[in-house]
Amino acid sequence: MGDLEIRPATADDLPAIVAMLADDPLGAQRESPDDLTPYLTAWERLASDPSQHVVVAVREGRVVGTLQLTVIPGLSRRGATRSIIEGVRVHADERGSGLGTRFIEWAIDESRRQGCQLVQLTSDASRTDAHRFYERLGFTASHVGFKLQL
Amino acid sequence: MGDLEIRPATADDLPAIVAMLADDPLGAQRESPDDLTPYLTAWERLASDPSQHVVVAVREGRVVGTLQLTVIPGLSRRGATRSIIEGVRVHADERGSGLGTRFIEWAIDESRRQGCQLVQLTSDASRTDAHRFYERLGFTASHVGFKLQL
Repeated sequence: MGDLEIRPATADDLPAIVAMLADDPLGAQRESPDDLTPYLTAWERLASDPSQHVVVAVREGRVVGTLQLTVIPGLSRRGATRSIIEGVRVHADERGSGLGTRFIEWAIDESRRQGCQLVQLTSDASRTDAHRFYERLGFTASHVGFKLQL
Repeated sequence: MGDLEIRPATADDLPAIVAMLADDPLGAQRESPDDLTPYLTAWERLASDPSQHVVVAVREGRVVGTLQLTVIPGLSRRGATRSIIEGVRVHADERGSGLGTRFIEWAIDESRRQGCQLVQLTSDASRTDAHRFYERLGFTASHVGFKLQL
């Protein structure tokens, strides 16, 4: 396989990103790859917020992964800045290729560069394979993640 | 008890906020209420970031609670904006007064006002009382929260 590049996403990457968000057991029910309008609106907000880093992984000119890193300053833990990883998706063709690991390692390195003392993420309780994957990368499953739909 | 006001925090509230962060079984080990320098540095960053809302609850002129609400735009869930609640602390004298409920209800209402479709938070697995509290307020413990210290 050709070289892998991880770079900031652009609006042109949105169709490929949304296709990956939808190609997932949970995502299939909540995404609309045939209607990009809501994603374009969200993109405007993401692109103008310096705390947001949406990146894509590209192999041979093709977008094969995406994740969103958010940098959050805070007061607790002696004024620690933390990062949150959200929306990690790897193209079906790339599963098992090591891209997931490369991707999370990129997010950890970037968090360090941004002065974060903590990286955090939540993973749906049903994604047990993902849980083992994050633990192998050094994460601790120390918290319970609560969500409330508005 | 007198009326309760929830308002944006100011730099003058930092000593009271840090005292509450430290007055907690987990916080006692990781905060430094005698040295506010790192908190003042973090405060500069928080105050200049429009996605960050650090608030305090005040009763009879005294700060009795704090929380941080972060608004995060995103692509997944049809470009949903979510909010994250962090650093919730209620003064020891106020526990059982209903302030915790008022506070989280404030955060939910504010999230709605900010156009969020989802409110999320993580709670240390050891805080089982807090878990029941969030479930009573409508949150679902659907996720596992992973952290990595840098």
